Amino acid sequence: MTASSPTSPLRIGIAGLGTVGAGTVTLLRRQAELLAARCGRRLEVVAASARDPRKNRDADLSGVRFESDALQLAAASDIDVVCELIGGSEGVARQLVERAIAAGKHVVTANKALLAHHGAALAEAAEAKGVCLAFEASVAGGIPVIKALREGLVGNRIANLTGILNGTCNYILTTMRETGRDFEIVLGEAQAAGYAEADPSFDIDGIDAAHKLAVLAAVAFGSRVNFAGVYVEGIRRVGALDINFARELGYRIKLLGHARMTEHGLEQRVHPCMVPLAAPIASVDGVFNAVAIEGDFVGSGMFVGRGAGAGPTASAVVADLVDVARGRILPAFVVPASKLADPPAAPMQRHRGAYYVRLMVNDRPGVIADVTAALRDERVSLKSMLQHGRAPGPDDSVPVVLETHETEEAAMLRAIARISALSTVLEPPCLIRVERG
Amino acid sequence: MTASSPTSPLRIGIAGLGTVGAGTVTLLRRQAELLAARCGRRLEVVAASARDPRKNRDADLSGVRFESDALQLAAASDIDVVCELIGGSEGVARQLVERAIAAGKHVVTANKALLAHHGAALAEAAEAKGVCLAFEASVAGGIPVIKALREGLVGNRIANLTGILNGTCNYILTTMRETGRDFEIVLGEAQAAGYAEADPSFDIDGIDAAHKLAVLAAVAFGSRVNFAGVYVEGIRRVGALDINFARELGYRIKLLGHARMTEHGLEQRVHPCMVPLAAPIASVDGVFNAVAIEGDFVGSGMFVGRGAGAGPTASAVVADLVDVARGRILPAFVVPASKLADPPAAPMQRHRGAYYVRLMVNDRPGVIADVTAALRDERVSLKSMLQHGRAPGPDDSVPVVLETHETEEAAMLRAIARISALSTVLEPPCLIRVERG
Repeated sequence: MTASSPTSPLRIGIAGLGTVGAGTVTLLRRQAELLAARCGRRLEVVAASARDPRKNRDADLSGVRFESDALQLAAASDIDVVCELIGGSEGVARQLVERAIAAGKHVVTANKALLAHHGAALAEAAEAKGVCLAFEASVAGGIPVIKALREGLVGNRIANLTGILNGTCNYILTTMRETGRDFEIVLGEAQAAGYAEADPSFDIDGIDAAHKLAVLAAVAFGSRVNFAGVYVEGIRRVGALDINFARELGYRIKLLGHARMTEHGLEQRVHPCMVPLAAPIASVDGVFNAVAIEGDFVGSGMFVGRGAGAGPTASAVVADLVDVARGRILPAFVVPASKLADPPAAPMQRHRGAYYVRLMVNDRPGVIADVTAALRDERVSLKSMLQHGRAPGPDDSVPVVLETHETEEAAMLRAIARISALSTVLEPPCLIRVERG
Repeated sequence: MTASSPTSPLRIGIAGLGTVGAGTVTLLRRQAELLAARCGRRLEVVAASARDPRKNRDADLSGVRFESDALQLAAASDIDVVCELIGGSEGVARQLVERAIAAGKHVVTANKALLAHHGAALAEAAEAKGVCLAFEASVAGGIPVIKALREGLVGNRIANLTGILNGTCNYILTTMRETGRDFEIVLGEAQAAGYAEADPSFDIDGIDAAHKLAVLAAVAFGSRVNFAGVYVEGIRRVGALDINFARELGYRIKLLGHARMTEHGLEQRVHPCMVPLAAPIASVDGVFNAVAIEGDFVGSGMFVGRGAGAGPTASAVVADLVDVARGRILPAFVVPASKLADPPAAPMQRHRGAYYVRLMVNDRPGVIADVTAALRDERVSLKSMLQHGRAPGPDDSVPVVLETHETEEAAMLRAIARISALSTVLEPPCLIRVERG
């Protein structure tokens, strides 16, 4: 562990000078006096690295040593803590974090992919070296939810956790609802406006939210990060039609991440959900993130804030740096790495819940009878059915919406297979799980 | 400072065995193993005190030494930390906290009144002794907002802070809206149901919320607690009529606490507000509390949770105990007591905002002309006016509602004085400030 007395400056190396890295440098400069007063010592950026040294950046880097090789930050003797803001689960980011820890340096990272894939191993390595592995910025930057779970709610067993963890998806779903436009069009607009990446699949296929959920669940349940155990579905198949039916049924569609300990193991799932309008999380719109947590003593609560962007993410990175400066080092996932639980992943087939199913059918007599017979045969109980007049679908198809009572996922999927096989059902059914929120 | 090695048990004395004290004992017993794993040491209740030793309590106190005199907890050599859960700004609670600090013991308290009146002095004393003064449970127990301000958002200058800080008031206002009943009736029901005290004035006159606001503002702005500088108005004058007009105008009425640094000093105010329905805080109903915070880097965010009750408050008390057990001791109000700012209180007369004014008038020609002339003479700009047909008021009076554009409080009050003096205005006007939320 790098020697540094509690009043000497904390010497920081920043790896990555993109949006988050530049934002972090800016925050540390602009709030230098404030932070010194709050920490009892200064937070100094000693060195920084970036892929392209010549690129113009928003941050003032005067007096900061530039390293063209990020790995130099792990080796430098004048650095106490490495901020890994490069991203990605492998490559330079992973090497840098591993080497920094091995060299006895604290690590602060915003890298959810890295933690989702290697969180437990990195936590073990950090503990063995007595250094900090902190990652508040990796999940919902504007919401200090890792700290809330590790410290503020530490006296609770967490019953469950539900989050809007990807701002891009929430922005797209909100805009679809507000404008009535379809997914592909809104995605294109979001890309043009900079709210979605040129390659949006990490966001819209739910991978980014799943990385974050795996990290949050590990902190909430004191378990080894298990990204492979997350069931993931993105938002590509949510149509304008479904958004309208959701409104009619009193729901909003949100991409939610859920984690819960069940009799079958740790249930972790990310997928579009129908959420009742009255649920607090239903009204969290646009680029905002939210995390709702239920603990056995504290009851239910919800935290809302911006999920991404330079300011909110830098705020989270600096919160971790301040913890390091104040000497407040905790096990990464609340309990020592050797004591982390390793529960099995609850199979999605065992999940129980209610379902919204939207079919496109040929509007012929007997269609509904066939569909409801398929549900009956799998013992799925129907709660309601909606069929509006002849909507102008292709092939004169009309939408039919079914809402079920609570049932097991396996039964629901068998019923869907039967329904899909009907000749009058024209497209693969759109299935969206209904949540209480 | 009491000697206690980082792996020996943390020895706790609990003063007060009411709802919160009993809840804290229960939590510490039920989660003993969980907490030991998370802290690396056990949290043990060594002694407890209460006014009436014979009273039946919900908590299991076997093996806990009972002290009939709470002050003994400050003197006992086998106690590392005193939990003050008695309440009240003076008397035993104050003496106990002062003596515990003087004896080098850490203090965890849920006592907002004590902190509102003596927070700065107690923080100085605790720092001089190198002990912790922690008070997460004093404000919105279910929301770890003190920790969020001191740590999670530590990299930000807080621009402003808005909270629903009193669950009793929020419950009454929510029930008035849902049932259409008037204040006195709903208050009586709340008392019968245990949601309001027999003497409800601390809650409904806004004092409790003001205590909490003063504590939050001190943490948010790194300033000396200034309860005397809080402008306070309760909810007694909010009528069913106003709740209905609020609905018609697209608002909800909430008792909010606001804190903000202005050019005139620190503005702290607690009063009923008209909040637009679309503002996230507008939909926080019933006994829930909420705190919305805006920081210069993090942007806006909101935390929602239960404000009171055994479980949520015990959760907060234990979070502080865990910080003590982990050796994580910070200055009470973020910066050392000697460096706390002492800004002047911004005078309420200088407050700028929009206003809702409801008058009961004689329905005669010329009334509106007189009222609008009074506003014009004070240069208060009218945004809208509502006058429904002849409502069956006493004396054949009818309500008239005015909404102003942003103006200075002093001008508004002068206009109100002129309006009140009109012979056609039958009651003192009801004035509710309009907030963005």
